[in-house]
Formats: sequence, structure tokens, C-alpha cells
Amino acid sequence: MSPFKDRAAAYVARVEKALDARLPAAEKNPVTLHQAMRYSVLDGGKRVRPLLCYAAGEALGLEPDALDDAACAIELIHAFSLVHDDLPAMDDDALRRGKPATHKAFGTATAILAGDALQTLAFTVLARRGNARMLQTLAEATGSEGMTGGQAMDLAAEGKQISLTELEELHRHKTGCLIRAAIRMACDAVPECDKAARDRLDRFAGNIGLAFQIRDDVLDVEGDTAVIGKTQGADIAHGKSTYPALMGLDAAKQHADELYADALAALEPFGEHGQGLRWMAGYIVQRDK
Amino acid sequence: MSPFKDRAAAYVARVEKALDARLPAAEKNPVTLHQAMRYSVLDGGKRVRPLLCYAAGEALGLEPDALDDAACAIELIHAFSLVHDDLPAMDDDALRRGKPATHKAFGTATAILAGDALQTLAFTVLARRGNARMLQTLAEATGSEGMTGGQAMDLAAEGKQISLTELEELHRHKTGCLIRAAIRMACDAVPECDKAARDRLDRFAGNIGLAFQIRDDVLDVEGDTAVIGKTQGADIAHGKSTYPALMGLDAAKQHADELYADALAALEPFGEHGQGLRWMAGYIVQRDK
Repeated sequence: MSPFKDRAAAYVARVEKALDARLPAAEKNPVTLHQAMRYSVLDGGKRVRPLLCYAAGEALGLEPDALDDAACAIELIHAFSLVHDDLPAMDDDALRRGKPATHKAFGTATAILAGDALQTLAFTVLARRGNARMLQTLAEATGSEGMTGGQAMDLAAEGKQISLTELEELHRHKTGCLIRAAIRMACDAVPECDKAARDRLDRFAGNIGLAFQIRDDVLDVEGDTAVIGKTQGADIAHGKSTYPALMGLDAAKQHADELYADALAALEPFGEHGQGLRWMAGYIVQRDK
Repeated sequence: MSPFKDRAAAYVARVEKALDARLPAAEKNPVTLHQAMRYSVLDGGKRVRPLLCYAAGEALGLEPDALDDAACAIELIHAFSLVHDDLPAMDDDALRRGKPATHKAFGTATAILAGDALQTLAFTVLARRGNARMLQTLAEATGSEGMTGGQAMDLAAEGKQISLTELEELHRHKTGCLIRAAIRMACDAVPECDKAARDRLDRFAGNIGLAFQIRDDVLDVEGDTAVIGKTQGADIAHGKSTYPALMGLDAAKQHADELYADALAALEPFGEHGQGLRWMAGYIVQRDK
């Protein structure tokens, strides 16, 4: 098997092509909305969730074309959440993916509508293929008891001292639910997915979901705005509770390493087929953006 | 057959009970978000779209329990659109359904998230029943080429003189798509829906969708804030193009009457079973709120 790093680049190109094909054309009426949607999704982003979906597909012996819609849908949900998260009434962030945030480039009203329409498009993409199981997985991960619930917890925690347990609960929702969904949707694509495999992949996803967030918090302290593509120090400026703030920087890094180790342990039975997920886990805890 | 007016009250009670059961409990974490979602949906609203869905179900010989999820989903999408439409960056409306708009009651950030989560819940409700066909109908009616596209056209038209053709295009999207979807979802619930029946119901829906909007515009001129439950004159204050502004008040009313007549004509083959839809059409062109 070739190194996943090479396949990862091909998967990124693949999902970007698939997203481009599923987004309405920029010339289509209403053009400003369609331009804002395309701007918010294309040309930027690490595509971590699609990569996790494809890598989970490898672990389960799926061909990538079984997952193109899932990979697009999850990235559309992620993009919608970023557009709304950056709004003036939310985090009021001017920079995203190294470019002006959507509300800076198109205005707040259009950014609200673009986020709304990106969410709808995610479900449209899956509904057109008649995949009700994936739809349910993604919808439950997105809503008030998933990612959006995590954003509400984040709002409620702003400027407050919260406990480590509350912070973990927040992140299990805000980032964790979508990362889990990326991998669960690959399981959904297998007609009779083995429960043991599903549980192991879920354990993997839970661990790297948290590790991903800890890394984000660490980068907010240590990262470089030009590299991370968003404003360094923004969490601290917003009075947000972060792992480094609650645990100390070194303990936070060590916690991420422990989660990483348990994530790898969960992959053992997949042997060589788990190579992609292993690579993704390493990327997540070591990335510098 | 008993008059639809009596059944309408029962359908409203039915969909409100179904919505209550499908919305997360107010005590569930994150509580503010769940309270805002419930506030935005329950205790208010004419439930026009659910009523159209149930009435179309009667025309097609369906039992109402085949349509409870569809009726809830479409009302959730409608509620989400109102919450976002009223935001300061959008129409900046303080009053909705006779109460403070969600952003006034819960703050802008929570209102953004509540709208987001209501959209997700609509799709979750349908996905849990495995109904990908209804989901596709609703998603296509909601997104950038449907209702949200109409809102973007509305934004683009603000403060501008637009033609009657452009106004109709705008409303066919902004209000029309969801009204059409309410009726199409009833067709989706019939395993083998007759194409002729579907086309006739679609013609009905297209007509009353436009008539509904014209009535809205007329009420903005003639209505009473206390009765309509939102700010009278708001469209004019926002420099919005309306039917009365473009056609004159009397011509607008006459246009609504013509659409009403064609809507009734489309129902002819349904005979007695079309009674509910006929009643709804009458309600839509004559309502005072």
C-alpha cells in the first residue's frame, strides 16, 4: 500500500471536484448567494472530515465513489458552521481559511443566507441519492443535540470559568459530533456493517475528535495567524475556556497524546487497512494549521 | 363530510402536539437553545403549510398520520426562515406572531443557532422515518434554488424598483416553494401518485402560493399590527417592492382573485375530497392576519 499522504492529496482533489459539481453555478440566480456559497466552501480548508470519511471507507473496504456524497455533505455542514460562527453576533471573526470571512466579503445578511443554504445543500446531496441512513447520522450530528448544541454551549460558556468536564462536553458536541459522523457515514455506506467494527471506529473518532480540538486550542496559543489562516489568540481574546487555559499547555499536549494512543489502539484489528485513519490521527495531533 | 373549518382546528392541534413531541425538551442541555427553538415554533403561527399538507392528504385519500412528520418538517423550516428573516442584519423585525421576535427574546447569537437547529430538526424528523423522497422535496424547496434563494432575491431587491416579473420570480421562490412542497410531500406519501393528480395539485399550489404573498402584501398596507402579529407597514418602511406598490392596491386584490379562481379550477377532478384545499384557498385570499 502506498503512503496515505499521497492518497490524501488525491482525496482532497476528489472532494473539491465533487463539491464544485454539487454547488450551484456562480452565474445562477441569485448570483450573490451562489457566489457566497462557493466562496465559503471552495479554495481553502483542510478537508479533515472528508479525509476521515474516505480513510474510514478504506478501513471498511469501500470504494471512494460510495462516499463522495457523504464527504461533500459533511464538508458543506462544516462550511455552514464556520460561516455562521464567524458572524459579528457570534465570534465576529474577520479571517477564515486565510481569506476574509464570508460576512466580510459579502455582508452579514448574505452570509446568514449562505450558511443556511449550505446546510440545506448538504441534506439535498444525500437525499438525491436516497440515503436515509446517512441523512439521519448527519442530521443528528448537526442539530441542537450535536454540533449546533456545542456552539450554544460555547456561547453560554463565554467569559465564564467552566470545568474541564464541561469543556469536554462542549467539544464532544461542537467538534466531536461531526468528526464522529464523518466516520459513521462510512459505516452507513456498508450494507451490513459489523457492530464491532463500528464500535471501534466510533472509539477512534471520539478520541481524535477531542484531540483535534485540543490541538486547535494549542494552535490558538502557539500558532501563527498566517499559517493557521484565522486570527491567532482569538479564543483568549474572547475569554473562551480552552484546554491550555484549564490544564496548562504541557498537560493539554500530553492529553492529546494519550487520546492519540487510544485512537491507534482502537484501529488494531483493521491492520493495513487502518493505515489511512492512523495517518489522519497523526496529522490531527501534529498539524500546525 | 363535515366542514373543513372544524377539521382545520383539529389539524392545528394535531401538528402542535406533534411539533411539541419532536422538539427537544426545554430542560435538555443546551437549555437556552432548546427554549429558543420551542419559543420560535410553539404557541403561535397559522400553520398554513401543515394545513395544506393535511388537506392535500385528504384529496389523495391519505390518513393524517402518514403526514405528521411532513407537516412538522415543513413548519420547522418555515419557523427557521422566520427566525433568520427577523434578525437585525436581515429585516430587523422586533415582532413576530404577536410576540417579541426570537432575537429580541434570546439575543441574536442564540437566534442564529436556533434557526440553524430548527432547519436541521426538520430534516432529522424526516430522516428518522427513512423518507428520502419527502426529504428531497423539502430540501430542494428550502435551499438556494428555493426559499433561501427567494430571500436572497428579496435582499437584492431592497430599495430598488423591480419589475412585476422579478417580483413574481422572487415570491415563487420565497413563499411559493415551501407552499408547493407542503402539497408535494403529500404526493410523496402516496406510494404511486398519479402524475395527473400531482400536476393538478402543483398548479393549485403555484396559484395559492402567489395569492398568499399578494395577501401578505395587502395586509402590510391595510392590516392591523395587533391582528397580523407583525409590524404593519414594515415592507414599505424597508423600501420593499410589493404587489400593491407595483400594480396598485385594487389590481393586486383582483390578481389574487384570479389566482384563486384558477386554483379552484385545478381541483375539479378531486370533487368532495378537494373540499379542504378549497377551504384553504379561500382562507388564504381572505385572511386578515
